[in-house]
Amino acid sequence: MTTLDEKFSALAADNAPGQEVRQDTGDLDAQMKGGLFNGVPVDFSHGDVDAFPPTPGSAEAWNAGFAAGGRQAYTEYRGAAAIREGLAARLGTFTGCPVSAEHELIITPGTQGALFLALGATVTTGTKVAVVEPDYFANRKLVAFFGGEVVPIALSWLGARGENGPDLARLEAAFKDGTEVLVFSTPNNPTGLVYSPEDIAAIARLASRHGVTVIVDQLYSRLLYDGERYTHLRADENAPENLITIMGPSKTESLSGFRLGTAFGSAKLIERMERLQAIVSLRAAGYNQAALDTWFNEPDGWMAARIADHQAIRDDLIGVFRGAGLATAVPQAGSYVFPALPPLDVSPEVFVRLLRRQAGVTVTPGSEFAPATRASIRLNFSQDHAAAVAAAKRIVEMVARYKS
Amino acid sequence: MTTLDEKFSALAADNAPGQEVRQDTGDLDAQMKGGLFNGVPVDFSHGDVDAFPPTPGSAEAWNAGFAAGGRQAYTEYRGAAAIREGLAARLGTFTGCPVSAEHELIITPGTQGALFLALGATVTTGTKVAVVEPDYFANRKLVAFFGGEVVPIALSWLGARGENGPDLARLEAAFKDGTEVLVFSTPNNPTGLVYSPEDIAAIARLASRHGVTVIVDQLYSRLLYDGERYTHLRADENAPENLITIMGPSKTESLSGFRLGTAFGSAKLIERMERLQAIVSLRAAGYNQAALDTWFNEPDGWMAARIADHQAIRDDLIGVFRGAGLATAVPQAGSYVFPALPPLDVSPEVFVRLLRRQAGVTVTPGSEFAPATRASIRLNFSQDHAAAVAAAKRIVEMVARYKS
Repeated sequence: MTTLDEKFSALAADNAPGQEVRQDTGDLDAQMKGGLFNGVPVDFSHGDVDAFPPTPGSAEAWNAGFAAGGRQAYTEYRGAAAIREGLAARLGTFTGCPVSAEHELIITPGTQGALFLALGATVTTGTKVAVVEPDYFANRKLVAFFGGEVVPIALSWLGARGENGPDLARLEAAFKDGTEVLVFSTPNNPTGLVYSPEDIAAIARLASRHGVTVIVDQLYSRLLYDGERYTHLRADENAPENLITIMGPSKTESLSGFRLGTAFGSAKLIERMERLQAIVSLRAAGYNQAALDTWFNEPDGWMAARIADHQAIRDDLIGVFRGAGLATAVPQAGSYVFPALPPLDVSPEVFVRLLRRQAGVTVTPGSEFAPATRASIRLNFSQDHAAAVAAAKRIVEMVARYKS
Repeated sequence: MTTLDEKFSALAADNAPGQEVRQDTGDLDAQMKGGLFNGVPVDFSHGDVDAFPPTPGSAEAWNAGFAAGGRQAYTEYRGAAAIREGLAARLGTFTGCPVSAEHELIITPGTQGALFLALGATVTTGTKVAVVEPDYFANRKLVAFFGGEVVPIALSWLGARGENGPDLARLEAAFKDGTEVLVFSTPNNPTGLVYSPEDIAAIARLASRHGVTVIVDQLYSRLLYDGERYTHLRADENAPENLITIMGPSKTESLSGFRLGTAFGSAKLIERMERLQAIVSLRAAGYNQAALDTWFNEPDGWMAARIADHQAIRDDLIGVFRGAGLATAVPQAGSYVFPALPPLDVSPEVFVRLLRRQAGVTVTPGSEFAPATRASIRLNFSQDHAAAVAAAKRIVEMVARYKS
């Protein structure tokens, strides 16, 4: 049986985005080559909501919620009914399949909250859960926390178009072998790969055939670049009976400081998630929920401009990394880029800490996403454009300095 | 092994405060005696933040947090360092024992969030946990959710002064028998009993002697009535090594719509709680955290007036219930009153639903707090004074109508 010490040692968060400030950097100097860099520090561990501010009207919506008083402070655990009504309609339209506001939608404290509730509602001691590698680092941790067993499914993302995607043969074998849950993100975090229509159709078919519950994290599905196509699993004709889709306004819409997310899908699972929410944190903060009225409701042209701005940064960063010979996939959606590092004189973990100390650049080490991607780094490029490009050039110079 | 269906059936939240709106009331009419009552509906399942509005300056603090941008949106998981600094000093002063802002304090999404993290950090499969009965309904549910075993400890609250409190002999026996964690609230939810200095000292001594971790929920400790004395376990000279104190501004200060709470105590446990927070919901909403600067920082006289207002309502409600012969303890702190119902022609559960349907009065059934208090009802009397008294009179009339 897992002891509490073991359980929490598996939850180490020292390299998690935003936690770097708690690291002890006392031993780094001995390994440092060359001096410090000048330049604006950039924290690529998360998006910069000063460079890309929250949706217009979101603060006003919060204040209106506050002014509404008690009825906004104390909502149902699954969120205010009136807000769910509008949201369900808009999410149904976006994903191409209707959502019942009454039974199939829950508002959560961020998409992290949604993911926690979804896995808590489907994973218990011994549950086998297919987890894509690489994928969002919390997925593996959540499965372990609830006592489940991670069944890794490899993802390719550095190949040519049409060659990328999850290992479907492995997935089918896992399903045949008693795997009960699949969790994955599309666009994939950290690579920016959007699952192809064929892969989504195959996942739907396989999950239905084997009675597997699917949790699909579509957090970044709105930030879709020119010429790309997004496929919603829930709109597939073979979508599995037990399916939860997760989205939220923390990223593209920069509402992270509000801690708002949603999960929608099978009524039975949403009901379980609400029961769990009741003992986890009751509800997403009541006044904050009011800001969801701005979501999928942005001013005309706002989202298009935000996508174009991100695409321009993406293209410049890809140019910098590929120009230096770092294997880097072009993200199809979202604001993550995941360059691979060459062999270095220091470990990838130390390099990431040196980057922060020496070059003022914070990135998330690839080891957070899969054991096999230890030598990659993830950047959230939702940043000031010029500062991001300058910081990417410092990364390239640092790689040159430490290359074996 | 517990299946997910069993696990979630134990988490049923249909009678939880705020969830009554989801109940099916179709079968009630057949059991109804007499007609409907007139009068302003009162929802005693939680406080009314319109009658007792949020701390002055809390909305302004939120707006300043929003304006601060990224640094306020993305705090450490345990909360913004600058906010923790001020808070730690004020909580240390209030509880009579210093708190380290760096290592011993975490900001959470409400005190519910703090309780979840505290039990998640200390309870795993098979952990024996002493749970007071009656006490806050989530305590038992959380222990069960994490796979622990509830060891019930009876509380007396209807006796004379000096006779009330937890069954210390039972507690000691439980500690000797391998119980590793004790969780309780003081003032007790739902009865309003404040643990005596002697009982707190005994709990400290017993927990230390047997190496038991203590989680003490002091949510309502500021709303202390005339002539009452509050004892902080953490300031006891024998306080156990592993001790977490939980407080938050959701109740007395009416900041429930912000979802803010705190836990403070043993650094090792706070560290575990932060790791868990990282996968549960990342952090309390960043902008909302800013409102904590108003906490223990209210305008002069504000808290005294709030206490006096609640004391006046308390005294009137006690008069109404005792006048009708319902055994009711006078709460020493907090805004809960917990009258006992006489034998009725309908079950207590049906009576609670009839109260809502027929008299416009929402209360929380005693079965939520302990199996043995099924025939009591809990009222949160942080309400409009006149409306609360009128609603209490309707409860008394309803009791007369349904009395066996």
